[in-house]
Amino acid sequence: MSTIAAQQLQDFIARTLAAVDLPPADAAAVAELMTRADLIGADGHGVFRLPQYVRRIRNKGINVRPNIRVVGEKAAMALVDGDNGMGHLVMRFAAQTAIAKAKTAGVAWVGVNRSNHAGPASLYASMPLAHDMAGLYLAVGNANHLPPWGGIDMLLSTNPLAVAIPTQDEPPIVLDMATTVAAYGKVKTKAQRGEIMPEGWMIDRQGKPLTDPKRADEGFLVPIGGYKGYGLALVIGLLAGTLNGAAMARETIDFNKDEVTVTNTGQAIVTIDIAAFGPVPEFKRKVDDVARQMRASARLPGVERIWLPGEQSHAKRAERSAKGIPLPAPLRAQLDQLASDLKIAPLS
Amino acid sequence: MSTIAAQQLQDFIARTLAAVDLPPADAAAVAELMTRADLIGADGHGVFRLPQYVRRIRNKGINVRPNIRVVGEKAAMALVDGDNGMGHLVMRFAAQTAIAKAKTAGVAWVGVNRSNHAGPASLYASMPLAHDMAGLYLAVGNANHLPPWGGIDMLLSTNPLAVAIPTQDEPPIVLDMATTVAAYGKVKTKAQRGEIMPEGWMIDRQGKPLTDPKRADEGFLVPIGGYKGYGLALVIGLLAGTLNGAAMARETIDFNKDEVTVTNTGQAIVTIDIAAFGPVPEFKRKVDDVARQMRASARLPGVERIWLPGEQSHAKRAERSAKGIPLPAPLRAQLDQLASDLKIAPLS
Repeated sequence: MSTIAAQQLQDFIARTLAAVDLPPADAAAVAELMTRADLIGADGHGVFRLPQYVRRIRNKGINVRPNIRVVGEKAAMALVDGDNGMGHLVMRFAAQTAIAKAKTAGVAWVGVNRSNHAGPASLYASMPLAHDMAGLYLAVGNANHLPPWGGIDMLLSTNPLAVAIPTQDEPPIVLDMATTVAAYGKVKTKAQRGEIMPEGWMIDRQGKPLTDPKRADEGFLVPIGGYKGYGLALVIGLLAGTLNGAAMARETIDFNKDEVTVTNTGQAIVTIDIAAFGPVPEFKRKVDDVARQMRASARLPGVERIWLPGEQSHAKRAERSAKGIPLPAPLRAQLDQLASDLKIAPLS
Repeated sequence: MSTIAAQQLQDFIARTLAAVDLPPADAAAVAELMTRADLIGADGHGVFRLPQYVRRIRNKGINVRPNIRVVGEKAAMALVDGDNGMGHLVMRFAAQTAIAKAKTAGVAWVGVNRSNHAGPASLYASMPLAHDMAGLYLAVGNANHLPPWGGIDMLLSTNPLAVAIPTQDEPPIVLDMATTVAAYGKVKTKAQRGEIMPEGWMIDRQGKPLTDPKRADEGFLVPIGGYKGYGLALVIGLLAGTLNGAAMARETIDFNKDEVTVTNTGQAIVTIDIAAFGPVPEFKRKVDDVARQMRASARLPGVERIWLPGEQSHAKRAERSAKGIPLPAPLRAQLDQLASDLKIAPLS
């Protein structure tokens, strides 16, 4: 596996997207966010997705010149029409809108429709942090891998939730989780590596544990806490999808199999201005203190360290910023092919 | 086990609380909410708690004449000081405040501090439904039973989350969940009945499954999805507790063991006005449609029916409204003793 400097990867993504006709500023913005995904270790959500995005763009399945705009608003909310643009651009616009509104209203909720896959949930939940705000992000996933609890029809996606909370000296608290025990990307990774999955990730159509990732098509992901994870996936889908007039349940387009049909992806971001509730430094110190209480807990046998949500991504970002981003050889080959197809300079 | 008509139970709770000096209107309001908990089957959160509430009130651990008030607000948020009143009164006030604010701002977030145990999360998340709003409720639980993932110090409560979403003809979608596989009340119930717990509810200090509920003190609850449930419990605690200046982590008072110290319980409610996002009837029809898609899914072998979140509570409420609320004999005896102590008319 080779590694690549973040800036070089970002430049490559930008010129790739510009080559398929995204305006240069939009290409650069998406490239920055996709590279951030690779930097924090969300390997299934960064440059890994670039060939797929390019195919969808070339199939006119994504609008490269969207008119992303607010189509309804009140003091603390907005509904954004993403006009089928790249999800990163739609969600960046939504986050900026929510941050501006929370500055006056204290809290804001911005929902989007006609968006697309936008990478890791934590990217958007974290955007309010720089403004001393907490952020929540909800999304309808772009493929259904989850049946209702007790069922076998895959009607739900692993609808993710992310929550980011500002800190003083500690890394920010950033929870980013699918509502299933394992995200589908982890199953794919196990299959690629020829490994067996632990019991509890998937079940088959008889309800028995499915541990061979090559048989993933014969089963379903298991929601966290059984019916609780099913309930979470459902309500996240209703609030991020249905409420915004976006796709949900049977309407969801599997963007891995269908590279043409408009996905009408729904997402939502909530921003909470800490200053509206009390002094910001005091809040941040208290969050630091809570984080340190967790880390200082006595541990189960064999546990070396207790982590806070987001702490490992934070460490990975520092490591990969310094040492580069690892690129598996098959992905590297795909990116070289993409450069050749688009007649652009390859990754150096 | 005897049963009691809801109205009789409610009247008994009201006269009990009035006897320990709650103003009659407050006693009636709390009694109505506590009885609602029993009606929906939240048996650990209704009249079951009455003797404990009375002990705490008599110990001056709850303020029976609180000045519950907004101490900070912006267009879409308020911070409420519960003045150590009954949690039901504090949260009812917070929900009313959030509903009023969402009518103009579209969305509102109201946090409370110096509150107390308020019964089941779903009660408050459901209050916005009658106003064609969705509701979210977050709370810091009143006893720590959960260590950070990998740890053995019980620093977190099973911080619950509830989400309620309005429907047209279907029962409303109402998710009410602790962030642990089993709530602690379920462990207590197993112990009372002399039953063994399933593996996965609790682990001991070696990380091994603990299935004897009589040994519950030797172990901890297991969070849903492992580190995910830990992360959820943590961020819910930070947003419902720390953000509001309420207790969190080590500051949490175990209200089962300590009936004197002010708990400084933190809770939060979010209200989302459906009309701000689009036509209400269309939204409700779509939610009905999603609910029916889930219910109509093909099923795993042995599964008789697929449930929507809140559907079983909805059915239980209808059943118990008609047939009465079951009262286990030991609880009945406790309530009779309470009536005798307070010199009030017992349950008839």
